[in-house]
This record gives sequence, structure tokens and C-alpha cells, in this order.
Amino acid sequence: MKILRSTDANFKEEFARLVRRGETDMRSVTPVVSGIIEEIRARGDEALVEQIEKFDRWRVQGDLAITQEQMSRAYEGLTAELKNALQIAYERIYAYHEKQLERSWFSFDPSGAMLGQQITPVDRAGLYIPGGKAAYPSSLLMNAIPAIVAGVEDISVCTPAVGDVVNELLLAAMHVLGIKKAYKVGGASAIAAMAYGTRTIGKVDVITGPGNIFVATAKKLVFGDVNIDMIAGPSEVGIIANAAANPRNIAVDLLSQAEHDEIASSFLISDDEKFALAVAEHIERELPTLAREPIARASVQNKGAIIIARDMNECVELMNELAVEHLEIATENAYELLPRIRHAGAIFLGHYTPEAMGDYLAGPNHTLPTGGSARFFSPLGVYNFIKRSSIIALNKCAIDELGGACMALADAEGLGAHKKSVQIRFEEK
Amino acid sequence: MKILRSTDANFKEEFARLVRRGETDMRSVTPVVSGIIEEIRARGDEALVEQIEKFDRWRVQGDLAITQEQMSRAYEGLTAELKNALQIAYERIYAYHEKQLERSWFSFDPSGAMLGQQITPVDRAGLYIPGGKAAYPSSLLMNAIPAIVAGVEDISVCTPAVGDVVNELLLAAMHVLGIKKAYKVGGASAIAAMAYGTRTIGKVDVITGPGNIFVATAKKLVFGDVNIDMIAGPSEVGIIANAAANPRNIAVDLLSQAEHDEIASSFLISDDEKFALAVAEHIERELPTLAREPIARASVQNKGAIIIARDMNECVELMNELAVEHLEIATENAYELLPRIRHAGAIFLGHYTPEAMGDYLAGPNHTLPTGGSARFFSPLGVYNFIKRSSIIALNKCAIDELGGACMALADAEGLGAHKKSVQIRFEEK
Repeated sequence: MKILRSTDANFKEEFARLVRRGETDMRSVTPVVSGIIEEIRARGDEALVEQIEKFDRWRVQGDLAITQEQMSRAYEGLTAELKNALQIAYERIYAYHEKQLERSWFSFDPSGAMLGQQITPVDRAGLYIPGGKAAYPSSLLMNAIPAIVAGVEDISVCTPAVGDVVNELLLAAMHVLGIKKAYKVGGASAIAAMAYGTRTIGKVDVITGPGNIFVATAKKLVFGDVNIDMIAGPSEVGIIANAAANPRNIAVDLLSQAEHDEIASSFLISDDEKFALAVAEHIERELPTLAREPIARASVQNKGAIIIARDMNECVELMNELAVEHLEIATENAYELLPRIRHAGAIFLGHYTPEAMGDYLAGPNHTLPTGGSARFFSPLGVYNFIKRSSIIALNKCAIDELGGACMALADAEGLGAHKKSVQIRFEEK
Repeated sequence: MKILRSTDANFKEEFARLVRRGETDMRSVTPVVSGIIEEIRARGDEALVEQIEKFDRWRVQGDLAITQEQMSRAYEGLTAELKNALQIAYERIYAYHEKQLERSWFSFDPSGAMLGQQITPVDRAGLYIPGGKAAYPSSLLMNAIPAIVAGVEDISVCTPAVGDVVNELLLAAMHVLGIKKAYKVGGASAIAAMAYGTRTIGKVDVITGPGNIFVATAKKLVFGDVNIDMIAGPSEVGIIANAAANPRNIAVDLLSQAEHDEIASSFLISDDEKFALAVAEHIERELPTLAREPIARASVQNKGAIIIARDMNECVELMNELAVEHLEIATENAYELLPRIRHAGAIFLGHYTPEAMGDYLAGPNHTLPTGGSARFFSPLGVYNFIKRSSIIALNKCAIDELGGACMALADAEGLGAHKKSVQIRFEEK
């Protein structure tokens, strides 16, 4: 793993490269993805089936829909341990997201105005869950539960099949969640079908969920015609730790990110050189024990970095600049640093909070902003599945009190009918 | 104004066309806008100045920055009435948006886990305010105040100059808001400069504000590298009213939308044919009295519609399908219908709530989702300028209680290092 010191002559440049890690160039795939979307819009299901045969590589003979019977059969096939684990995850994720639920509010002000904000769920949500080598049933829980908590009545799930077969644990998770509409289709085709609708797959209002560059590009292209959660790239972790932590634990935490993907990033920032070097050693020692060693090794070698900073202040500053998806703080008093963290998708505090616990069942969402976009994006949440309407109700008193100022502004902007709409009520006896 | 009856043979088709009003084809302008953005990214200020000369059509000789002295001078030049009106608008908009401010929360659960959600403002916001014939100082208040309430420390404003000159009331509004960074640049160039930064204009994290198709396309293209509020199109109003309302008032309210833009839309849906026809008559009578008659006439003729429905139920159903930006309800008991409104940007209740009051100073934001996107977008608000970080802090007890389920799930997903990161803490004595 690359080791950088903040006192190195070329540190600024090297670090700037890490800050820019999220720059993705969608231009190369945009023409292909645009074509996929246009085809679906023009020819619906017919194009969908062709695209599945071409990109998902299986021959569609029966139905694209997954039946509820398939889901319950998969659930029945699980071990008691896994059934229990899914249940615990479901309940904890549900309880956390319930805390995000916003209430409509109405308030009366002295002018006689009633003002408020009405919260309503979107009618229809579309969840995209990747398949194949990155088929994570946990992602379905993390995407579906906020929608369910928000009160969305019509939820569709799309996931690619591998040779007509869908991951059993994913099917079982659908059963636990009570999913009624699920379809075997992946990639940009699935995004296009949910954004614009086909005979089989209904049009939705919001699309969420992770995916590769094709999925991300499709989500960006359909944004505006539907809402989307965010545009996400490869996963990443940043850890601030020093001698208060166990270097082996930190090494395994870094590797648990690295094993996701060759292009995942793992960063350690420490004010303690000896500790940092010990972590580097543990990484080398742990790598050969991993089933996914080749992936993890490529990730730490090409994308990872250990940064040795002057002091804890600099650790925090650098971590804010990286604005990482997952941030672990394993120092003497992790809580002390928390208020100084400005940008991070999820923050894991203390020595007993490995990221993996958050990935599955601590409660908060594991769909998080990547590549520095924690500067402006939030974790997936209930707020992605609701929208707000402002409420205004004035009476004659409010018009009498505020109408003059309103007319002056309308006048200054040259909008005569705006002014008149107030004036005729103002002048009414 | 076009009159449709829900009992007409071709009503479904006609109405479907209104529902689809928001479909914009950005493809024709995308190459131009992409080119503008690439130029700014590659050549910064140099490209910016060239583009201002080409698109905003004035020769840049001095500075692009607007000075605070220019702002205060403009404010001093206002009449006392306008100063007062700006102050009232500022205070009321501020008070409403303060109610949107979310607090961070932390909670402890029986397993020993501490879970929470930390709210932080974005570091830097960029506000785009159109100029020229649609220079609305009220838009600056509506964009800046939520950012100020959110706690954003670094706010930049871009607005096009007309021959090097910026609208005086807009400058005065900058003074009232205490804007420190403002630049004379419009269109896609302004969006690109704020998204990627130039020597003069700093890179921001979130861009908000209205604009034409070039601005909307630029916002979509930079989305992901920064966050944006929404993609908005022409403004629109929908009114549900019947004999309980004054038909002249309703006619003027419809025209106050129509006078914005030839492509603005005004819809009246009524269960009362006589009332609806009276409104149509009043529109004809009022049109010649308007300073912006040609714009308003083109809008009502080409984009407006009066729809006569069977009953109030159908009025509500049709209005939900339209999902309008501004919705007025002027019936006997407007409050009764409120809980049945599923999609609308802002809802104006009763006979004394013309939309214009909301445009300027009722309090809620006037930047609202258009073209049916109220199905999934919200009004601009404080939530556009903050982001959330999930917080997780577990202890050994929580690992002991939840670790087993977590390891089972990690195992099932084939992620060995995930499992190990929990296991080494679980097995610790």
C-alpha cells in the first residue's frame, strides 16, 4: 500500500489526485446508454427483451416478472440462521429510518397567514439492485426500507438475472420485504424501463440504487424525467486511527472495503507513523488469508493509501478534503472529533464499529455518496421517497397588511397582472 | 382560452397532452452546452470572457465581480416603499425557512449502539439568477435565504448583465442579503464556472436557481460533480374553483401566471360550467388592460386550458395528474380538499391567496417544481443546502449481540474480510 507523508515535497500533488478520485468520464459510455434508453422509449418490451439477450446474456422465454411464489420458496430454503439475520437487519434498518420520517407542519403567523409544508410519499419508486458478482441482498433491504417507511405504495425492483437465475438470498429478501413487483432485467435497460415505462414494467417517479458506470450514466440521463437518489461510483473507506486502536483490526477494516472491487479505495490517515506502518504490515499478512485476495490486493495497491499527518488536526482536515463515503474514527476519543467532521457519508466511531456492521444491520443506510460527493449528497434515506408541498392560506387581514409591499415588488418587476391579483382583493371592502 | 369537458370524446387525448407538457428535449442544445462547459473547464476565465461577449453580448473590460459598494449604492437609491417591501419579504421568507431547519439527532438503542444523523451545511453554494427581461430580484431572495438559514458560509451569485449593467433592484436585494460574491455572467457559462471553478469564480458544491433551456441543460450536465436543486421549465398555475369564488379574481390569477412567459401554462379546473365560462369571459376582458398583453395572450391561447369536470372528485383527480407548480384552491372549503392533493409545488388556499403573494413575500419559496415534476421534486428549501452523515458507534456488547447475524450475512454475500472485521472483535475477550 502506498505510504504518503504530509511533509513530503510532492504531497500536495499526490493528495490532490486522491481528492479527485471521483472524477468519472461518462462521455465514452453516453452514446451507448442514450441508444439503450431511446430504444426502450420507442419500442418498450420488445427492445427490453433484445437488450436482456444482448447485455444480460440469457434468452428470455417466459416472463420477466419474478413471482411471489419464487420469493417465498427462496425464503423457505434459507437456514434458520440466515432467516434470523435477515429479520434482525430488517427490524434495525426499519427502526433507524423511521426516525427520518418528517411530519407535515402548519403554522399561523400574526398577519393572519397560515403557512405550512405538506409531506407526501411519491406514488411509485423503482429500485435497482445489481446482480452477478456484486449481488448484494443487503442492498435491497437498504433501498426498499426507506421507501416502505416513506409510505410508497407502488415499489418495483429490477435486478439482472444470470442465465435466467436470480440470487436466492436476494429473492428471500424480497419475500421478507413483501415486494410485489420485481423484474429480471439489469443495467441501463432497467433504468430506462422504470423511467419511461413499458407494457411489463410500470413508469416510476423515483429511481434509486447502486450500479456500474452504465447504470450511473442512465440514471443521470433520465434525471429530471424522474428523480434519482445520487450518482455513485466505486465504494471507499477512510480511517483516522492511531495507537489507541488495534492495527490488525484497522488493517482488516481497510481490506473489507478493498475486497469489494479492484477500483474501491481504502485510506488510512494517522498522526502516528509507527502505528501506520504496523497497519501496512498487517495488510500484507492478512491479504493471503482472503478468499477475494486478488481483488483486495489490486485495490490496496492501486487505489489505497496510508497517509502520515503531522497531528490530529491535519488528519481531520485531510479527511474533510477527501469527503469519503465511509469514515471510521478509531482514536482515543472518537466523539471529540465528530463535530469537526464536515463531509462523510457515514461515520463509524470507536474501536467496535467496523464498517461491515453498518453495511448489514447497524441500522443506517449503506447506500452512501462516493468519490467526494459527500460534500453535497446524503445517504439514501426516507427523504429520497417523499416530496414537499408548500401551503399558503391568507385571509383579508393578511392581504390588507402585506398587500402593499407585495404590489410594490410586483410593480418593480414589471408584472402588472401579479399586482392586480393582489390589488382587487386589497381594494375589496 | 381552450375549453375542455371531461365528457368530450377526445378528452383523454387532449388531457394527456397537458400532462405531458413538461417533456423537454434537451438533445438539440446539449452539444452547444457541452461545448461551453468543456471550454470553461479547459481555459477558465479566458473562455468565460469570450462567452460573455458572445452570449451576454457585452464587452468585458473591467472586473466580472460586482462590488459591495455597487450593491449598497443601489439599495440607497430605492424608494422607502421598496426598501420596506424588501425588508418585509426578507423577514417573512427567513421565518418560514427557519422552520425547515433540521437538527442532528443521536439515539441509543438497547443493543448498546448509538445511532444518529449529523446535519451539516454545504461549504459553498452557487445561486443562478436570470437577468434581462426576466430579472426577478425576488428570485435572489428565494434562493439566498434558504442557503443563509442552512448556514452556508460561502455563497456566490451569478447573473447576466445587459450591456455591463445589472438590474438595480437585484443589486439592492444583494445588499439586503449581505451577498459578498456576485459575478456578471449568465447562462450555461455561469453554471459551468460555478461547477468547476475559474480563477475569478470559485467552485461550489450546490447550484440552484431558475433559467432557460441552456441553464437547465447545463445544470443537468454538471449534476453529480455538484448537486443541483431541480431541473425546471416554464412556470404554471392550476386553479380549482367554482361559484364560491369571484370569477374576475380567478381570471386575473390565471393571467398573472400567463404574463410571465408565452410558454407559461394556466389551467382552471371547475365542476361548474357557468362559473368556468364566466372566468373565460373575464380573461378576455382583462387581457387588453395588461402591460404584458401580448405575452399573456399567447400564453393563454396556446398553453392555457379551462377544464369542466363532472364533480369535485374529478377536479382533484385531474389536478393530481397535472401535478402543477402552483395550485390555487378557491372553493367553498378549500381545507377539505387539501389532504387529497398528492402532487403540487405550492398550494394556495381560499379566496385571499393569489399566487402573487407567494411569489414575493408570503414566506414559502417560489422556486418550485414545474411540468409535472411535483410528482417527485420539492420546492427549493433549506434541505437543498445541507447534507446528512449517518453516525454509528457500537460497543463490545453490541458486537456480541449483533455480530453473529452480521457475519451470517457477510458470509452469504461471500465477503470474507467483512466477516473477519466483525469476527476479530466478536472473539475478543
